[in-house]
Amino acid sequence: MPPEAPAGLRGTVLVAGVGLLGTSVGLALSRAGVDVRLSDPQPEHVRTASGLGAGRPAGEGDPHPCLVVVACPPALLGEVVAAHLRAHPEAVVTDVGSVKSAPLVDVAARVPDVADGRRYVGSHPMAGSERSGPLAATASLFEGRPWAVTPHARSAPEAVETVEALAAACGAITVRMTPDEHDRAVARTSHLPHLMAVLTAGRLAGAPAEQLALSGQGVRDVTRVAGGDPALWRQIVAANAGALTELLREVRTDLDGLLAAVETGAPLEPLLEAGRAGVAAIPGKHGGTPTPVAPVYVAVPDHPGELARLFADAGEIGVNIEDVRIDHDPGRPVGLVELAVRDSHAEVLRSALESRGWTVHR
Amino acid sequence: MPPEAPAGLRGTVLVAGVGLLGTSVGLALSRAGVDVRLSDPQPEHVRTASGLGAGRPAGEGDPHPCLVVVACPPALLGEVVAAHLRAHPEAVVTDVGSVKSAPLVDVAARVPDVADGRRYVGSHPMAGSERSGPLAATASLFEGRPWAVTPHARSAPEAVETVEALAAACGAITVRMTPDEHDRAVARTSHLPHLMAVLTAGRLAGAPAEQLALSGQGVRDVTRVAGGDPALWRQIVAANAGALTELLREVRTDLDGLLAAVETGAPLEPLLEAGRAGVAAIPGKHGGTPTPVAPVYVAVPDHPGELARLFADAGEIGVNIEDVRIDHDPGRPVGLVELAVRDSHAEVLRSALESRGWTVHR
Repeated sequence: MPPEAPAGLRGTVLVAGVGLLGTSVGLALSRAGVDVRLSDPQPEHVRTASGLGAGRPAGEGDPHPCLVVVACPPALLGEVVAAHLRAHPEAVVTDVGSVKSAPLVDVAARVPDVADGRRYVGSHPMAGSERSGPLAATASLFEGRPWAVTPHARSAPEAVETVEALAAACGAITVRMTPDEHDRAVARTSHLPHLMAVLTAGRLAGAPAEQLALSGQGVRDVTRVAGGDPALWRQIVAANAGALTELLREVRTDLDGLLAAVETGAPLEPLLEAGRAGVAAIPGKHGGTPTPVAPVYVAVPDHPGELARLFADAGEIGVNIEDVRIDHDPGRPVGLVELAVRDSHAEVLRSALESRGWTVHR
Repeated sequence: MPPEAPAGLRGTVLVAGVGLLGTSVGLALSRAGVDVRLSDPQPEHVRTASGLGAGRPAGEGDPHPCLVVVACPPALLGEVVAAHLRAHPEAVVTDVGSVKSAPLVDVAARVPDVADGRRYVGSHPMAGSERSGPLAATASLFEGRPWAVTPHARSAPEAVETVEALAAACGAITVRMTPDEHDRAVARTSHLPHLMAVLTAGRLAGAPAEQLALSGQGVRDVTRVAGGDPALWRQIVAANAGALTELLREVRTDLDGLLAAVETGAPLEPLLEAGRAGVAAIPGKHGGTPTPVAPVYVAVPDHPGELARLFADAGEIGVNIEDVRIDHDPGRPVGLVELAVRDSHAEVLRSALESRGWTVHR
């Protein structure tokens, strides 16, 4: 017997758009006992998502939904949300798009009826986007992650509660903020870093191979996200142009100062110190204050089974590993593995690994 | 009995400056059977390095060195190299600094004797810098890593050979380039990415906590290197100002274009595509063409032993893991571990892990 659907989601939920996010919402809600229907402009995506257990294909004669979750490309959000507000005059409608203010303006323009607008509450789960499509979906995508819920001035309290019930049913942690606050937050923590990675990576395209031969882990980390889908990112940037413009202008001011300092030999410390403070300001694992961690470097032969042996030994030693990094420098038959552990555990782990025959770099 | 010293290093090698790099050079050369002497303005560093086995403290009555390896802070390089060229009129002198052109100009100005200048050949091992001091040193720091050897126009061929023997004795792979080529290469692959990370992280310092609560893995990766030592980076940037200025101007041009495009809604694809091409241009593990890898996502409880179990299973399955990433999003009691494996092995690993009871995110 399936579990009883959570309070607030006792009716049917329609998921409109079954890519990575929509299908994952369907999987999580179905697992929670909710009656889910799925729609998408691409019928094969509906078949796939339904086959995975995300819900039943939407059709004629379906019960009226209590909630519609719109999970379509950013540029279409306003149009699709408005269409569902009109098509389902009793339903709460939300969306899971990466920006919140521009779609709200679009919805408001398309839905002049104040009563209809009350039923719309935007939201944004902070879940991975390296992959796409229903096959990449998973019921646990949102577990423990922040899910921004962004009511507008006229959103009905009951509609906000329904959307918060959705986030809770998916295992996420609700963070309530206004659409503007949300957009400023993701401009700073996601969209600006993405564009800075793009600008950095742009200097590598077409560079001489002998220059790129000196690439280390640093440049790989700084540029990784710039490998993301240009079509998606064009839409995200366009939809959050206001908040991004402000930050990009601040960066240009800093860049001008940096250029002048490099050219004239003026002190760089204030800028470098601000960067260091920024890194320290990012909240730690599990949302708390960052745990002070220390690196333990271990030489590991680059073939199957060796990492297993290392982690088995670390596990037996009883030290929790907070993070792992494998060094990718060219030409090393032996990899250097960096294990990040609590400060106070680092020396214990080093000694214990050495006594088990590992080469630990001190 | 120690091994016989490699050809080209049969005399005494003096390491001047025993921080991370100098001490690691001493350890590697001593292991290779070379007679190593150590000096440093801080006598306790010499005692530490010598105690670790990096060589004997330099003193009166030492044999004349055949090679002096200068490993001091970037701003002092020219002065210290020149002093050793004068003090040891038969020795080859090299350094391991992060930039090569500015110190060369400095050396040339201080050593007007052409015959003396012939004995100087700059070099730069591409080895980690997150840690510092002799205690962080290891004989295997340079194993399999690129080591740029940067002769100038008047360097004697025998002197170049001696420095290449040094790199080889440390287990590194020599990459010969001119000082200018080297500085342009590291400006692009190391110094510019560092400054872009600093500018990005600078936008986080002092940001409201509720905005930072939405931080994900992307911003962590982009900004990580900005946590590095400001005093060191000020010197590196100052010493490579020429090459960096050129790249920073290119970035400003791109940034101006980006800002204009964001403000006017012009197409961003060319810029985003250039970034993607840049990420793809970074050479792969072990210096070859990048191996096409695919991610396998596994849910792992956040306590000791679970990662060990995962890697043990992956090892038994026989799939080599190219990279690991642990997801740090706030509030997750279960971590999401991303295993990067060869494209063709991903599905094998997913199925086999599932059959062993792991939750694999598809």
